[in-house]
Amino acid sequence: MILTRRKISNYHHLRVDSDRLRQDFEELAQIGATPEGGVHRLALSQEDLLARAWFADRVEAAGLLVQDDDAGNLSGVLRSAKPHAKTLLIGSHFDTVPNGGKYDGSIGVLAALECLRVIREAAISLPVHLEAIDFTDDEGCWRSLFGSRALAGMLSDEDVHDARIDNGAFRAALSRAGIEIRDVFTAERPSSAIAAYLELHIEQGERLERAQTKIGVVNDIVGRTTYRITFLGQAGHSGTTPMYRRRDALRGAAQFIVRTHDAVRERYGDGVFNCGDVDVKPGAFNIIPSEACLTVECRHVNAQLLAEMEMLIVQIARECAAVNALTLECERIAHMPAAHMDESILSDIEGAVEQLGLSAMRLPSFSGHDAQMISRIAPGGMIFIPSVGGISHHAQEFTHWEDVVNGANVLLQTILRIALKKK
Amino acid sequence: MILTRRKISNYHHLRVDSDRLRQDFEELAQIGATPEGGVHRLALSQEDLLARAWFADRVEAAGLLVQDDDAGNLSGVLRSAKPHAKTLLIGSHFDTVPNGGKYDGSIGVLAALECLRVIREAAISLPVHLEAIDFTDDEGCWRSLFGSRALAGMLSDEDVHDARIDNGAFRAALSRAGIEIRDVFTAERPSSAIAAYLELHIEQGERLERAQTKIGVVNDIVGRTTYRITFLGQAGHSGTTPMYRRRDALRGAAQFIVRTHDAVRERYGDGVFNCGDVDVKPGAFNIIPSEACLTVECRHVNAQLLAEMEMLIVQIARECAAVNALTLECERIAHMPAAHMDESILSDIEGAVEQLGLSAMRLPSFSGHDAQMISRIAPGGMIFIPSVGGISHHAQEFTHWEDVVNGANVLLQTILRIALKKK
Repeated sequence: MILTRRKISNYHHLRVDSDRLRQDFEELAQIGATPEGGVHRLALSQEDLLARAWFADRVEAAGLLVQDDDAGNLSGVLRSAKPHAKTLLIGSHFDTVPNGGKYDGSIGVLAALECLRVIREAAISLPVHLEAIDFTDDEGCWRSLFGSRALAGMLSDEDVHDARIDNGAFRAALSRAGIEIRDVFTAERPSSAIAAYLELHIEQGERLERAQTKIGVVNDIVGRTTYRITFLGQAGHSGTTPMYRRRDALRGAAQFIVRTHDAVRERYGDGVFNCGDVDVKPGAFNIIPSEACLTVECRHVNAQLLAEMEMLIVQIARECAAVNALTLECERIAHMPAAHMDESILSDIEGAVEQLGLSAMRLPSFSGHDAQMISRIAPGGMIFIPSVGGISHHAQEFTHWEDVVNGANVLLQTILRIALKKK
Repeated sequence: MILTRRKISNYHHLRVDSDRLRQDFEELAQIGATPEGGVHRLALSQEDLLARAWFADRVEAAGLLVQDDDAGNLSGVLRSAKPHAKTLLIGSHFDTVPNGGKYDGSIGVLAALECLRVIREAAISLPVHLEAIDFTDDEGCWRSLFGSRALAGMLSDEDVHDARIDNGAFRAALSRAGIEIRDVFTAERPSSAIAAYLELHIEQGERLERAQTKIGVVNDIVGRTTYRITFLGQAGHSGTTPMYRRRDALRGAAQFIVRTHDAVRERYGDGVFNCGDVDVKPGAFNIIPSEACLTVECRHVNAQLLAEMEMLIVQIARECAAVNALTLECERIAHMPAAHMDESILSDIEGAVEQLGLSAMRLPSFSGHDAQMISRIAPGGMIFIPSVGGISHHAQEFTHWEDVVNGANVLLQTILRIALKKK
């Protein structure tokens, strides 16, 4: 039986099973649990592989089909009876940042699985395949959004064969997961095969909490560019080299950090700048630093403004190098373009929210997500739920369970709305 | 025969053997040689132990007595025939900073050995023992000026038993050198046993070169204080935490580095500030730094102004922590007080310079030296020779050989002048 528009309201009463979802959540959070109450589950690590094995078991136990691809993406599939059906992808990721939290990514995959279970149990026959997917290395332990980029055909040769960033260890990690590096490009799927993409995720900010709003309907996903910026000076004895004759790489780097933070705040209210690390050489208390290598990123939802910010950052780096007689190396490591979500899908999400009697607001996402990549080949939509205090990428990351269940129900009803429109 | 004042001029013609000294210099520079042309010979490392074994061989080959103490200080001794003679110590150190140069320290010990050889060959009997000494860990790979502090009775329990700074590795390193950590305090010598201390060293600055002066007569050695300053903030997702709500430890640290450099330049013309390293945690491009630990030192020849500078540095750190809502930990790791050289010894050095027809100027040392410690228990004097371009603690460290020989001859004639005054 293929469901028709007339019958949609028959399924308005469907809800996810909060206890079953909670049990999955608690079990998964044990895999890579840290003493601080967070999760350390780096992509392709032993913990990540354990989480995948656990997920495959849960998929099978639910009577769904386990499926994976050559980029390590792992799915549970509820197949449509319709021949040549497109796939409605619903997912997120199990990997975490180092010492991350329990909610980031995990909630999205587990809620997707729960939605498939509910729909299967309700014996609803849909005109699309439903696929709950865990994408490989969203967080970029190896390569940011690796799995979703592979699926969207956005991987470049450089992502796989780039020897600069310890490719040997990356190959070994892929190999542990049973992935042959030469095969990853075969994970690409044609745009015509994907009906749409949905992702439920914690906000990782505090806009929803502050607005006392239950659901965030993401309209844009921030563009992000990563740089490695190296200031090169001259080592020397810190006591005997006159202050005015020094070429102190760290002094130049510090000026850059201070000035860029100030300039981004002043000129790009919605822009984001982070310097996450500094590597200083030779690194002794009594030697003037000859090298300071900075790990820098910037984000903006507006592609034009992001490009402007990048120019500003490089310009400030040049000036700080010049005034300290340093040489400068700017390497643009990665760029994830800003992405727009699909207006029709946003309406479906808002319809589901209204039907469930929840509050919602549209907002951009300042974090990158797999939706950013998949939305380049298919209509995409993201649903945010509140993060307490906006804390994320940290053991204290927390979302009230009621909000998780609300988000999962919005996801369930949105899946049904989208699926029932498809022929 | 004990030499009397009447016979001093008999020895004005004595000179070091330039070729023999040069051969020693070239051989020693091979031990820990780096591809860049410098030397990497950390205190108590395998290279340092090889250098000591080589030195002991050279001492024996010269017919001198090999002697060591429980702090690892290693000497060649030319004993006086006089009973109960005091010792005229002459030395420096064989250890280098990481990827340091060939001249720093080595020249001082090798020139001392050469002076003893010349005096022995001239069959001059002096009323003092002469001791050419290599001090352990001048550079502070483990503990700054460890050997000279031990000899001067300036080691504290904390220097040896402090568990904060990886004491296990330090014990293991001492053990490799045959040193029992409980015995190091026995290396202390009574003030009454030391006639004086002399040290020949490269300037590691460019004052002599700029003034086209051959010999520096050091009147003061800079005081130095080392801090570990840690800014503690809050980790968080770099994309989703609003800029104005961040507690970014690295931003505070960068402001501190910039402001302190500016303030020291502005207020303390003769003062020195260095931030040699920053350790950032967690250190990922997309996580706001929660911790930035800085390795900081400041120097001044004036003890009062050094104390003022320290207060200023801590005050700036407090302000930078406060404006970024960070907490601050300031740990005073080490303090080497400023030291004055002995006026009578300075006159002896200047007498030797004049006799040799060289140019000289008095100047303070902005680097710490073993003389700083030994001068606390005995009259001390230091002789500087020019460093080309002022470069030091670097493979490009260079001093013209003619200047090395000049310095060694000043050392030789100064030794004779001091020795012949003693009864």
